[in-house]
Amino acid sequence: MLDNASPLPYSLKFSAMFSPDLLASLRDLCARHQRFLVISHLRPDGDAYGSTLGLALSLRAAGKDVTVVNADGMGAQFEFLPGSQTLTATAAVPPEADRLIIAVDCADPKRLGSVFESWKRLPDVNIDHHISNPGYAALNIIDPNSPATAQVLYEILTALQWPLTAEVAANLYVGIMTDTGCFRYRQTTARTLEIAARLVEAGANPTDLAESCYQSFRAERLRLMREVLNALHFANRDRIAWFSLTPEMYARSGATADETEGLIEYLQAVRTVEVAFLLEIMADGMTRASLRSRGTVDVQKICATFGGGGHRLAAGLRTRLEPAVLEKKLVDLIAEQLPA
Amino acid sequence: MLDNASPLPYSLKFSAMFSPDLLASLRDLCARHQRFLVISHLRPDGDAYGSTLGLALSLRAAGKDVTVVNADGMGAQFEFLPGSQTLTATAAVPPEADRLIIAVDCADPKRLGSVFESWKRLPDVNIDHHISNPGYAALNIIDPNSPATAQVLYEILTALQWPLTAEVAANLYVGIMTDTGCFRYRQTTARTLEIAARLVEAGANPTDLAESCYQSFRAERLRLMREVLNALHFANRDRIAWFSLTPEMYARSGATADETEGLIEYLQAVRTVEVAFLLEIMADGMTRASLRSRGTVDVQKICATFGGGGHRLAAGLRTRLEPAVLEKKLVDLIAEQLPA
Repeated sequence: MLDNASPLPYSLKFSAMFSPDLLASLRDLCARHQRFLVISHLRPDGDAYGSTLGLALSLRAAGKDVTVVNADGMGAQFEFLPGSQTLTATAAVPPEADRLIIAVDCADPKRLGSVFESWKRLPDVNIDHHISNPGYAALNIIDPNSPATAQVLYEILTALQWPLTAEVAANLYVGIMTDTGCFRYRQTTARTLEIAARLVEAGANPTDLAESCYQSFRAERLRLMREVLNALHFANRDRIAWFSLTPEMYARSGATADETEGLIEYLQAVRTVEVAFLLEIMADGMTRASLRSRGTVDVQKICATFGGGGHRLAAGLRTRLEPAVLEKKLVDLIAEQLPA
Repeated sequence: MLDNASPLPYSLKFSAMFSPDLLASLRDLCARHQRFLVISHLRPDGDAYGSTLGLALSLRAAGKDVTVVNADGMGAQFEFLPGSQTLTATAAVPPEADRLIIAVDCADPKRLGSVFESWKRLPDVNIDHHISNPGYAALNIIDPNSPATAQVLYEILTALQWPLTAEVAANLYVGIMTDTGCFRYRQTTARTLEIAARLVEAGANPTDLAESCYQSFRAERLRLMREVLNALHFANRDRIAWFSLTPEMYARSGATADETEGLIEYLQAVRTVEVAFLLEIMADGMTRASLRSRGTVDVQKICATFGGGGHRLAAGLRTRLEPAVLEKKLVDLIAEQLPA
């Protein structure tokens, strides 16, 4: 258990990121603390919430005092997660000095939010799967080969024999399921599926959790999808596809900005589409673009032109350019990279 | 291996349907034959094709002579499956008397197609997961607790130590992935995910196979989706949702009937929707309806009123009624079952 300082079982399979030394350091650090704070990035997705709550509930089951916060508080879409009622918006008051801060699924400490920044403290522990994570904490466990931070946490929890209750399992399952797009995206391995099986054995209900994640949309989202499909654009022999989200589309559908999640995937499902993107004018007058590539085109490189970031297959940017101007530039830049 | 008549390893976990006696009978029956024919139901889905080809390739790897047929031949959407080029439309000439006929994933021998019926022979072996399967063959292995026939086949292949090559694994993986909607539908268990992990270890590539299944649509299908979303109906406080597919919608979108697969799922994704259905006038003038329930309403009972079939959560029917008449009747019958 958590306070057990005996040697780690050496028979477990670790990737380089899960070296026994690193895990022993984490175990010892946590054994020395009674108070914890778990936090993840703003605009949290299923892996951010699932990892935050999964780790928090495991620590609590081990008898620890755990605060759970997020810059954006608890999103309605993930309120079904066990423990969600204990997550609050990041408080302006910094935590006690002896409260160990663990950041999960957050590649950049700036994305922990401005309230966190006002504390003038970096996280003590940084558990993540993003390759761009520079290792900003005192102790960093980053496995870029994992498709989700929840998978990294499963490896840690089982290696250290921390509690894996049904509630912890449900949270980690949602993290893995959502970050792999239901076990479909790159980096899904046999190990991912095996961990999913173990989490179901531990009490995660795969069909109930999938229904909560994927069959719980409002009718307004379907109406927004209709708006999107009526405003689709294709170029370069259907190899580029895109749409713009306008205030009129939100008004007609009644949908909100957090209901746009996943809409771009409908474009990616078309076999000719090498790059799909969406454009949106934000409340602050900036235009944002979100790009997805099937593999041929490096969209990170394109977004970097505008000061944006991401990785080869998924990247984004914000700019002061008008949507119509940006649209043309993006189509041109994508077309340059497409094979003839 | 296939011709090995040694006792079965008793340490394997069998559900009642995988009794050692039943498996020994199958092993002995197959050991006595050199020629096989594998067949599944018409309008084949991923589990029908995956199970057919997975079993056929395993038998071939064991040195058997295997014919693979289907009433509808090989669908373009599943041509990526290993071995697909060896599947042909059911031939009018019946197979040799000593060729063992194995039906997979087919609850009703009538669904093996009219050409098969003309052979005047029932299958010798019937491997399935449909609870409605009456057991029409000499040897029947039916596990209604499995979410896919491909999962039943995995249990059989591993229990009997039949070849599980990378090509066999890819076919079984697609069967399980598609019939569980990416591990989301009812009956997905820890065992399902564990089998998926084993199939990936055996050589199935989860991301490539998912891309082939879910990111390989024609742009025409997206245009059909647009037509559907523009013609949506809701009733009973958004608890019933439906659409009709018309010849005009096919004409405008350029899509074909086999591209309607999965469209109803967009309706089911709305959290208020208890029952979703679609209507379509068929080439023969009949109207078909396909119904899906979230759980409260038993759609099998409703379809039975019109001579249709299926199960509690998914059922269908064909009728001579006009779509407008059927639509009203269905909405009324669904509303009767909805809680107040």
